[in-house]
This record gives sequence, structure tokens and C-alpha cells, in this order.
Amino acid sequence: MARIVVDVMLKPEILDPQGKAIANELPRIGLKNFTDVRQGKRFELTVDGEVTEELLAQAREAAAELLSNPVIEDVINVEALED
Amino acid sequence: MARIVVDVMLKPEILDPQGKAIANELPRIGLKNFTDVRQGKRFELTVDGEVTEELLAQAREAAAELLSNPVIEDVINVEALED
Repeated sequence: MARIVVDVMLKPEILDPQGKAIANELPRIGLKNFTDVRQGKRFELTVDGEVTEELLAQAREAAAELLSNPVIEDVINVEALED
Repeated sequence: MARIVVDVMLKPEILDPQGKAIANELPRIGLKNFTDVRQGKRFELTVDGEVTEELLAQAREAAAELLSNPVIEDVINVEALED
């Protein structure tokens, strides 16, 4: 059993109100060194056995077809998860 | 300018209906090799200058205080993002 991680973020030009709300709140708890926050999604896909190149290709397909909205999001990372 | 990434996942014992819905949908688009899917959150925190140990400590504090709900979520990763 192994896992593949897929990271999806809003495209840079898309507004991120959740991230903005967090960025605004951080100074209120004393954390003043962060100039921006963006919130995205992380998926962990479990597979039987080892992560093969074919499974990574299937994960990239899942990322493009089901895990992201290509109009507003970028799949920024698909890789085997080190346990 | 640099970024710190924070990954937050539901605790393993917490049900993840969104992940389950995705796992159920994958075979319908021909992807039958994934036995489970979990959906979590990825945050990117921007800082001025380089990522220092102090900024990483502040990011860990932000992760614990604001970016996660410790009752149901685990902060699984806080690290400088390689550009």
C-alpha cells in the first residue's frame, strides 16, 4: 500500500478570499511576517502495492479530470508520498 | 520573497465524505486502481526575504492556531517551498 499526493492551487490571477481572510487574521494573533496566504487542496490517493509510473499517469489524469477545475485551478504537484 | 507550505489533513479516524465521493467517482472515468482518497488543505504563506527557522516556527504556530482544527485535523507538514 502506498499513496500518491496531488496538490491543487487556485491560479495566481484568481482571487482567494479564504486565503485573504487568513492573511488578515494572522497579525491579530501576533504573526506579522506573512505578506500573503493562498489556500488550496491536497489529495492523497491510496494504491495497492508500489507507486509505478503508470499509476502516476493515472493520478495525473484523475487530477486533471476530477480533482481540479482547469478554468480556475492549477495542478501543481503529483508525486509518490514518502512514508 | 519566499513561501512556506502548510499541509493539513483530516485525522485518519475522521470520515471524509468528499474524499469518499471522489474515490467512488474515479472508476466511472476508467481509473480503477485507487483504493481510497482523502482530501485535505494546502496553504502557501508568503514571507519577505528568505525562510528562516523563526519564520518556520511562526508558520507552525499559524498552522496550529488558525489553519487547522486540532479536534479533527492534523498538521502533517510545514516546510519552505522550493521554487
